[in-house]
Amino acid sequence: MISVTLLGAGNVGTHLFKAIHKSKQVSLKQWYNRSIESISSYKNKVSITDDISTLEEADVYILTVSDDAIADISSQLPFENRLVVHTAGSVNIHNLDKKHKRGVFYPMQSLSKSAEIDFKDVPICIETIDKADYHLLKSLALSLGCPVKKVNSDQRHVLHLAAVFVNNFTNQMYRIAHEITESEATEFDLLKPLIMETARKVQDMSPYMAQTGPAMRGNLKTIKKHLALLKKEQHKDIYNLITQSIQDTHASTPLSNRKS
Amino acid sequence: MISVTLLGAGNVGTHLFKAIHKSKQVSLKQWYNRSIESISSYKNKVSITDDISTLEEADVYILTVSDDAIADISSQLPFENRLVVHTAGSVNIHNLDKKHKRGVFYPMQSLSKSAEIDFKDVPICIETIDKADYHLLKSLALSLGCPVKKVNSDQRHVLHLAAVFVNNFTNQMYRIAHEITESEATEFDLLKPLIMETARKVQDMSPYMAQTGPAMRGNLKTIKKHLALLKKEQHKDIYNLITQSIQDTHASTPLSNRKS
Ligand SMILES: NC(=O)c1ccc[n+]([C@@H]2O[C@H](COP(=O)([O-])OP(=O)(O)OC[C@H]3O[C@@H](n4cnc5c(N)ncnc54)[C@H](OP(=O)(O)O)[C@@H]3O)[C@@H](O)[C@H]2O)c1
Ligand SMILES: NC(=O)c1ccc[n+]([C@@H]2O[C@H](COP(=O)([O-])OP(=O)(O)OC[C@H]3O[C@@H](n4cnc5c(N)ncnc54)[C@H](OP(=O)(O)O)[C@@H]3O)[C@@H](O)[C@H]2O)c1
Repeated sequence: MISVTLLGAGNVGTHLFKAIHKSKQVSLKQWYNRSIESISSYKNKVSITDDISTLEEADVYILTVSDDAIADISSQLPFENRLVVHTAGSVNIHNLDKKHKRGVFYPMQSLSKSAEIDFKDVPICIETIDKADYHLLKSLALSLGCPVKKVNSDQRHVLHLAAVFVNNFTNQMYRIAHEITESEATEFDLLKPLIMETARKVQDMSPYMAQTGPAMRGNLKTIKKHLALLKKEQHKDIYNLITQSIQDTHASTPLSNRKS
Repeated sequence: MISVTLLGAGNVGTHLFKAIHKSKQVSLKQWYNRSIESISSYKNKVSITDDISTLEEADVYILTVSDDAIADISSQLPFENRLVVHTAGSVNIHNLDKKHKRGVFYPMQSLSKSAEIDFKDVPICIETIDKADYHLLKSLALSLGCPVKKVNSDQRHVLHLAAVFVNNFTNQMYRIAHEITESEATEFDLLKPLIMETARKVQDMSPYMAQTGPAMRGNLKTIKKHLALLKKEQHKDIYNLITQSIQDTHASTPLSNRKS
């Protein structure tokens, strides 16, 4: 049985609470949040607190607080030499106060309080300073049903960067499509099956193999037509830059072999 | 019963063949392809030909040939005043020879011969010159199990442009993530659940509401770290431009309300 104390009750904290609460191999000691109101409805399920000095002993303390609060909260913890981890993709492990055994327990997923998620779809990237701590965190992640990946700091930062491309930047592509369809009285809804299929395709095919379209085919007539349709300069810039990127990626594929 | 003759046997032609073959309300008269070999394995299921002069009467002729071949093939058809449609997102309806009744039957989906697709996920955008032809094409699409949307030329071109953003450009975001993860000995596979979830989120939430991340939060420290990690100048340019686009989109949301 692994005992956990959770700090923070935002998107990540709330999902972790639910997963730990469900797990038979993990027990939740305490749940701390700066503002007690956001967790008070859980008080019959777990011991809650907003007083950091009351934290009791646990195998691991998971800090799911905002990136900028990690260093501060880790210093405030009223003990030392216990395992303390944060959940951020781009915060250095050494931001945690060095009085602790330290680790990172980074969930590679987009978590919102309001959206359900299956933890089998939440790969946990684990980084620790001591090897022994890795094994504990690995057991913890597996107990919650998560896939696990051991990473070093550089790899974690690269994964976070890659996540920005496939999540935030992809979502901005959807947003631009939303803007241009709505402004022309067509429906963004029509694009939803295509959005799902585009994501599904790369589940078992490389993005390189999955590419199609006018940029890849070098279809200048269509590209010119599209640029003329775009009203915002910034959208034209994005169209040009990503078209160029696609063409550079596929520069060595003969045009006649490119799928339409 | 609607009778159809299909021309072309690429990605779209092959999927339409299968859907028509399965449908009880649609009969396939003939299947034409320039190179007969690619359809010869179907000869027990449908009358096949590579001789355009042998085409018999049908309610509708669907041209699923490459964009550049549409005008030419439509002129070669050995009849007039029958309904002829093409399936392209960005080809003008008037590229079809004016001796025909003309229409467009544009599937808003990414179709590959090799990948199965459920036709309920293939919205058909229909454009016709005569209203009566619209009703026939609508019945045809519904008979194949497709959602239907009536569009005019401008709307169809805008939808095709939006499809480039959510399909080709999104896929290039995946590609860049693939490049940067592979070059740093991490695994693109770890990103796959996030890719699916990002697509799933906008099925019932606007991309505006779904946005998160360092660009939206104005987290300059992380943005700088990411730029330093990117090795290709072009990737830096893309990172900067899309970060700017996200910030412009959310400029009116106070920073404190932006989700992390
Ligand atoms: N959301 C995701 O998809 C995701 C994915 C991977 C990693 N992460 C990482 O997980 C961590 C939490 O993210 P989140 O999305 O859960 O954030 P969030 O929803 O904004 O929640 C932030 C939490 O931090 C607390 N907090 C903020 N500043 C604090 C301070 N100065 N002192 C004490 N507590 C403070 C908040 O307390 P109050 O309730 O009192 O405001 C809240 O409990 C971050 O490091 C983030 O980078 C997030
Ligand atoms: N694939 C998609 O996801 C998709 C989605 C929406 C719309 N579309 C549109 O649908 C149409 C077909 O696309 P596709 O992906 O099916 O293309 P494709 O797989 O490349 O197939 C092209 C077809 O056109 C034929 N063809 C090409 N040039 C010809 C010529 N000069 N004369 C006669 N036949 C010729 C080819 O015949 P051979 O077999 O003899 O080479 C083949 O049957 C295009 O207008 C495209 O814009 C495609």
